[in-house]
Amino acid sequence: MKLSEILQKIDENSAAKKLKNDAILKGIAPLEVASDGYLGYVDQKQYLKSLKTSKASWVLIREADLKEVPDHIEAIVVENPHLVFAKISHFFKKDEFGSLGEDAIIDPSTRIMPNVFLGKNVKIGANCVIMPGVVISDNVEIGANCVIFANVVIYRDSKIGNNIKIHAGSVIGSDGFGYAHTKEGEHIKIEHNGNVVIEDNVEIGANCTIDRAVFGETRIKFGSKIDNLVQIGHNCVVGEHSIIVSQVGLAGSTTTGRNVIMGGQAGTGGHIHIGDYVMIAGRGAVGKNLPPHTKWGGHPLMELDEWMRFYVTLRRELKNKKV
Amino acid sequence: MKLSEILQKIDENSAAKKLKNDAILKGIAPLEVASDGYLGYVDQKQYLKSLKTSKASWVLIREADLKEVPDHIEAIVVENPHLVFAKISHFFKKDEFGSLGEDAIIDPSTRIMPNVFLGKNVKIGANCVIMPGVVISDNVEIGANCVIFANVVIYRDSKIGNNIKIHAGSVIGSDGFGYAHTKEGEHIKIEHNGNVVIEDNVEIGANCTIDRAVFGETRIKFGSKIDNLVQIGHNCVVGEHSIIVSQVGLAGSTTTGRNVIMGGQAGTGGHIHIGDYVMIAGRGAVGKNLPPHTKWGGHPLMELDEWMRFYVTLRRELKNKKV
Amino acid sequence: MKLSEILQKIDENSAAKKLKNDAILKGIAPLEVASDGYLGYVDQKQYLKSLKTSKASWVLIREADLKEVPDHIEAIVVENPHLVFAKISHFFKKDEFGSLGEDAIIDPSTRIMPNVFLGKNVKIGANCVIMPGVVISDNVEIGANCVIFANVVIYRDSKIGNNIKIHAGSVIGSDGFGYAHTKEGEHIKIEHNGNVVIEDNVEIGANCTIDRAVFGETRIKFGSKIDNLVQIGHNCVVGEHSIIVSQVGLAGSTTTGRNVIMGGQAGTGGHIHIGDYVMIAGRGAVGKNLPPHTKWGGHPLMELDEWMRFYVTLRRELKNKKV
Repeated sequence: MKLSEILQKIDENSAAKKLKNDAILKGIAPLEVASDGYLGYVDQKQYLKSLKTSKASWVLIREADLKEVPDHIEAIVVENPHLVFAKISHFFKKDEFGSLGEDAIIDPSTRIMPNVFLGKNVKIGANCVIMPGVVISDNVEIGANCVIFANVVIYRDSKIGNNIKIHAGSVIGSDGFGYAHTKEGEHIKIEHNGNVVIEDNVEIGANCTIDRAVFGETRIKFGSKIDNLVQIGHNCVVGEHSIIVSQVGLAGSTTTGRNVIMGGQAGTGGHIHIGDYVMIAGRGAVGKNLPPHTKWGGHPLMELDEWMRFYVTLRRELKNKKV
Repeated sequence: MKLSEILQKIDENSAAKKLKNDAILKGIAPLEVASDGYLGYVDQKQYLKSLKTSKASWVLIREADLKEVPDHIEAIVVENPHLVFAKISHFFKKDEFGSLGEDAIIDPSTRIMPNVFLGKNVKIGANCVIMPGVVISDNVEIGANCVIFANVVIYRDSKIGNNIKIHAGSVIGSDGFGYAHTKEGEHIKIEHNGNVVIEDNVEIGANCTIDRAVFGETRIKFGSKIDNLVQIGHNCVVGEHSIIVSQVGLAGSTTTGRNVIMGGQAGTGGHIHIGDYVMIAGRGAVGKNLPPHTKWGGHPLMELDEWMRFYVTLRRELKNKKV
Repeated sequence: MKLSEILQKIDENSAAKKLKNDAILKGIAPLEVASDGYLGYVDQKQYLKSLKTSKASWVLIREADLKEVPDHIEAIVVENPHLVFAKISHFFKKDEFGSLGEDAIIDPSTRIMPNVFLGKNVKIGANCVIMPGVVISDNVEIGANCVIFANVVIYRDSKIGNNIKIHAGSVIGSDGFGYAHTKEGEHIKIEHNGNVVIEDNVEIGANCTIDRAVFGETRIKFGSKIDNLVQIGHNCVVGEHSIIVSQVGLAGSTTTGRNVIMGGQAGTGGHIHIGDYVMIAGRGAVGKNLPPHTKWGGHPLMELDEWMRFYVTLRRELKNKKV
């Protein structure tokens, strides 16, 4: 569809009329990765730095930032760039199930148990077991020697490597939790058109949720082990050989290095990086980037040494005080 | 069944014999909503205030509170009113699945995928997709333009509005967690005969649990968005356009105003009200009612300003002290 | 298989050559319960005390501890006993699904709904309802009067008693989260060959996860009630009539006495014992053994009395201080 048509359909008529380069909109993307025919947006100062070198054809931008737009990108001035971007994302939404999966390519050594549902264009390698009640959506690829336990759901486009176990009830590739907000306080869904990639030798516990990326991918790297009831947000990266204990939550776009250990019920904010070999004690609440080879605990988060002393000292100090 | 028969079946023979108005028991309910033919109970002082104006025919009550019972209600004196109420709730339990759902009324534009199970008297509106492995129990109603992702389970009597997405593995309408307790420390289930109502434009993430009400309803209001692995207890109300981030837990009977935001892993006690536009930081533990337009964080909960300063000051104070 | 063959297959050739008693390895087990033909391991000083009286035929041990091995047990010296033990556990892994369950023994009064999958050698007693989408694996036994709600998954060898409800989406008997670690930081799975036992009158909420034991059993005792989204780790024991509220996590090998109450989002470390009648406030973080009839809250955990005063005093003290 031409960009002007899309803008009209979402009631951005003024922007539609002013449009100079009214070509087919090929897709939407972050400015860093957008190419010719794509549209990006700027809605925070920090995004401006990607603007000069972006290969996007158009950018949604506030009037105040207009002077920052380079000549090779057409500025589309709107009041709320994130909200308009969210609305346009709906035109690129992919169907979860295109058809009924008659075309799956499955290695004959693999065992598909009863009551399994396979979407369109599914590929499954050798020596896998796909247990009853598993639902695998369109374009999912699964490597060799995998066990997908009962009632697991794998959303479209997920890529599952080799030697992987996914325990019962886990959900891989569900929509990320992202919305733009109107002035009236309504939330407009941002369609998450990325996917989830799980590298070789990963094991995922029962009833976990791993959301797919808004663009690009959410990735669980080689050899990582994830316990039950863990939440991995959209666009997260879990580094190689990491250990994520039960009930941990990683907020969107948070990444970890290799051999990171997160104790049970720990959690993170979004857009954080946790360095290689970092250890987070159970219930630790990570709100900032953490350098490699460090240990942390508590909420607010402190280095483990400080945290171990902190409450001991406090309780001693308070002992003689009355409420 | 007549009330005397029910009392005999649960071994309350003394109460059965003393009964004056031995009519058919139509149901049980909180005193405020009970009408003619219904039975309520009082087991805490705070319930006494509903007694004067209640339209219940009978009330289960301790001997000590007997003088508070007005003339138009018959008092049934028992040692543990809550426990007797729990036992009587079993006589009003509804079946989850009455039959095999041949009578579902489904709009022809709606796509029911394979391995879906529909109970009795299910209604589904236009343009929905019900994905594989979904189980929908008796008397569930779903509006138009809904997507129910794979392996979702919707318990009996749930009412799902229009334009709703429920992601894979979520459970809507499971029994609330409520028990009465015997002197010996056993727990007697209170049957939860209410339901769940989800209003239009709500989105619910993967592997969430939303319990049905003991009486009346648990309600998620218009436009609210709920992330993955969230627990909503029985009789909760989530106000319009609220945002509930992953791994949050709302205990029973807690209600929120509109546009409330709860960060990841936050939680609440039961029977609390969170005012309009309140923001709770991630991991915030809400133990009391919160006024509108306020911001909170931490455990114990503090206003966000205090919470931001609190640990900074503490850590500075403790810096020079040794364990 | 003979022990020497197994050692060769995991590249422990030197140990294989030195082996004196090269008999069939019947199994692996903790030293306390290992019997003739079984192999145990020592990798922490605390395990040495079980060595003298163990009936194991072999023990994996570090060279430094060799002098502690009694004459009746053959020492197998390796660099990393836990890692070798993990690798050997793979030879004793049981299949999840041996066949397609034509041999299930089901009481005729029990109702098996559509889309249920039963593994081999399943037994189900009288008056149960097994709802759609339930997957029950090999050798599972279920007693009488149970309701297994939709899409529950019960892994092999689980024993479910009488009068039990398991709500939708819960997973019983998934692999425990246990790995040995190589020098390079890879994690080698320890196969969990134990099971889960659920005693009579237990109720389990929706989307819970209860892992099976590495050896022996994970056990939920008589009359306990578990809310939604609860994690019970491998080898845990939940005592009689306990109440575990939503989103609680019990780490591996933690046990509780009877009538323990754990509030929502509470958690424990592993290998802890919580005494009879202990109450843990919501979000309480249990890191040590707790004596009976005590009450606790907070993180770090304090006796409830101290915890209630602690922050009140702190906030008063800090009131006049500036950041």
